[in-house]
Parts: sequence; C-alpha cells; structure tokens
Amino acid sequence: MVQPGELIREGKSKRIYATDDPDTAIEYFKDDAKAYHGLKRGRIWGKGEINNAISQTFFRMLSEHDIPNHYLGPIDSRQSLVRRCEMLPVAIKVRNRAAGSMAERLGITEGRPLQPPVVEYILRDDREEHPLINMTHILALRLGTPEGIEKATAMALRINEIISASMREIGIELIDFKLEFGRFHGQILVADEISPDVARFWDARTHEPLDMDRFRRDLGNTEQAYQELLRRMTGMED
Amino acid sequence: MVQPGELIREGKSKRIYATDDPDTAIEYFKDDAKAYHGLKRGRIWGKGEINNAISQTFFRMLSEHDIPNHYLGPIDSRQSLVRRCEMLPVAIKVRNRAAGSMAERLGITEGRPLQPPVVEYILRDDREEHPLINMTHILALRLGTPEGIEKATAMALRINEIISASMREIGIELIDFKLEFGRFHGQILVADEISPDVARFWDARTHEPLDMDRFRRDLGNTEQAYQELLRRMTGMED
Repeated sequence: MVQPGELIREGKSKRIYATDDPDTAIEYFKDDAKAYHGLKRGRIWGKGEINNAISQTFFRMLSEHDIPNHYLGPIDSRQSLVRRCEMLPVAIKVRNRAAGSMAERLGITEGRPLQPPVVEYILRDDREEHPLINMTHILALRLGTPEGIEKATAMALRINEIISASMREIGIELIDFKLEFGRFHGQILVADEISPDVARFWDARTHEPLDMDRFRRDLGNTEQAYQELLRRMTGMED
Repeated sequence: MVQPGELIREGKSKRIYATDDPDTAIEYFKDDAKAYHGLKRGRIWGKGEINNAISQTFFRMLSEHDIPNHYLGPIDSRQSLVRRCEMLPVAIKVRNRAAGSMAERLGITEGRPLQPPVVEYILRDDREEHPLINMTHILALRLGTPEGIEKATAMALRINEIISASMREIGIELIDFKLEFGRFHGQILVADEISPDVARFWDARTHEPLDMDRFRRDLGNTEQAYQELLRRMTGMED
C-alpha cells in the first residue's frame, strides 16, 4: 500500500500527503466540519469515509466522461490516490437553485430555480473568506488567463449536467457545487473533492438537504443524511 | 423656472421630483451623507451644491463625447433638469486601483493598480446591501439582457477613459466610480450622478482622497476636499 509522506497541505476536511512519486499524492478525508468561514466547527463521525467514497464515485463518473481530473484510485476507506497538482487560486461554484450565501446576499428566496445556472468564481485565499470575484478581477490580479478560466467554466457546466442527470435517477437534486482545479504537467484538472461538504443535494421530493447544511443549520442527523446519500449513490452504480 | 412636482424617489444623497413634462424630472442634491450601508450617517455642509456642479460638469463631458445620459441642464445651485427614466436594477463599478470594499474583500493593499480595470456589477436593491453579481446572476434572475449589459459595460469603460484623461490634466487620479443607468424611450442612458459621493478621486501626487472616503474614514475636511475638487474642475473647463 502507498505510504503517506510529507504533509503538503491541510484544509478543513482533508489532508494531502506526498508519496515517493512526485506525480502522485494521497488525499486523506477527515471527520472535521467547519462552516461560516471557520466560526462554526465540529465533527461528523464517519464523514471522512463517506466523503471519500462519494468523491471517488463522482470522480470515476468524470473519468467515464473524459473530463480530466486528479483521481487515480482508492487506497483505503479514508484515503484516495490522486495526481499531485499545483492548485489554481480560483474555484468555481455552479448553482441550479439559490441557496445559502447567494440567497442571503441577494435577498432572494432559498430554492429559487436559476436558469441558466449561475457560475461564480471564488478566490481561494488563506483567510477562509472565499470572496466572489469575476473575470476582470482574475485578469487584473493575474490569477488566470481568459482561456484557462473559460476551459474550467466549460468543464464545470458539463459536470453540472452529468452529476445532475445521474442524481436525478436516484431521486436527488443537485442544488449547487464548488469545484477546485489543479495544474498537472500543463493540463487543468478537476481536483480537491466532490462531496456533500462542498455541494448541496436535496431529496427531489421533500427538498430535505442531504449535505453540510444539516450541520451548518443544526438540522440534526447529518451523518445519517450523508450515509443516505452514499446508499442511494451505491445503488446508482449497480 | 421648472417647479418640482411629486417626489418620485429619494436616495441617500438625492431626491428625484416629477415635472409637468412626463419625460423630464428634477434631481435635487442633498447634503446628507451615508456610508457603510447606512450605518454611518451625517451631513456635509454644502455638499449638495458642490455635487450638483461636479455632476453637471461630468455629464456635459459625456454629452460632448456622444455618450447618452440623462442630463438636460441646470436649474439652480442644488437642482438639475434630467430625463425621467426607469432605473435599471444593475449598477456598474469601474476600478483603476483597489480601494475600499474591494481591497478589504480580497485582502489586497489599497492603491494596488488594476490593469485592465476591474468592472463589477452591483444589484441595486432596497436593502442598501448592494451585493456584487455577475453576468450569470443577471441572466438567471432576469435583471437584464447580455446585449444591454454589454452596451452599458462598454459605456462605463469609455467613460473611465474620458474622465481619467480629463482629471489627469488637473492633477487628479480617478480611482473608481459607480454608474447607474436608466431606460428612456427604449434607450439606455447614464443616469443618477457622477460625483465624489460615488467615485474616488485622489490627488495624483499625494494620493490624498478628495471624496466620500474623507467622511467614511473620519479624515476630516470633507467639505474642503469636495470644494478643492470642484475648484480644480472649474479651472479644467476654462
């Protein structure tokens, strides 16, 4: 089994370790949960294992659709082998319904459908503030090129279609999700994770959230909701 | 002289009155000052008269460059005659240097040059929150058309060039400004005001602000700074 080497970086829900191979890294999923820019902290038992499994499923889905991504394969219940890439400073959020910070910022009702989907660019910074930016900030602050951002945006919208369609089949609606990107030997890859920590999934019938909003809003049964999501997704792949 | 009729709307620094002519309105400039979404309030003696004169000068400049705008002519020291238009829900901010909310939000040094200039879209709402939005919010929330927004953006960038060049001649740097737009018989016009209440002007040599930041940050001599700006601008037109 691959052994974790030096800790490359640690985020709110993951650690990334080096391996002997400079092109690969180990992604370790923690149980830790943070919300509201780190003001609310806690732990969701078993979350690391569930998110590792969910994220693996989504990344396999991307690979099947020829979308370049960092995922190489499973290691154990909490760890995945991934391509070691240089993270890009801009994350992309795609929203199919208004929820969370967007609904609050714009003063609109949570759940309002957004058609065409909203695409937001977010500055990844060390301050946990994650401010919204747009293409002109990206250009003026030299955070990326128009071609790179357009490519990443097209990938994000395609992923929105793929995941939305597959989740619809198991009675789940993809409300929004955040993607992070890495550069690997000159190519832009989808990296980080795709999980209910960084995406919103609603039961299509009841509109109950099966995601981090259960923790953020003290709705209870967060672990059970994550497990229910994984359970349905496992059925999906049968 | 045109007499003010019904009060159409009142903002933090102006009142708009109807006239007998459904196509014209009276813009009345107040001394009131608000900052930080209304949390800081005060009065700057003589500001209304100064801003009326400054805004008139800028709108005349736009007309000379064939940029459609609401300005028709002076009435008295605090009032201008303008085209009565339906205000659009999106304002545009152009930034040549990082300052104020942008510098704070993105954690960058105030005064950092932005090249190309940053263009921000702002939702005009009743909550005084003025959240940033982007083209996808505008489309998904039906706030405008791509053509309308692109036209307004091109106007804003052209105005940035025109005003920057004219202010440079009198030793002043245009740091940023916010434009509001109206629809008048199907045409998009620059409306509202162009003044140190909604723009930042720095002395080109000392980088001292000659604008609302003097009030926001308790720098003192706000009225004198506004007067100094107007004095230099008057010289400009000689």
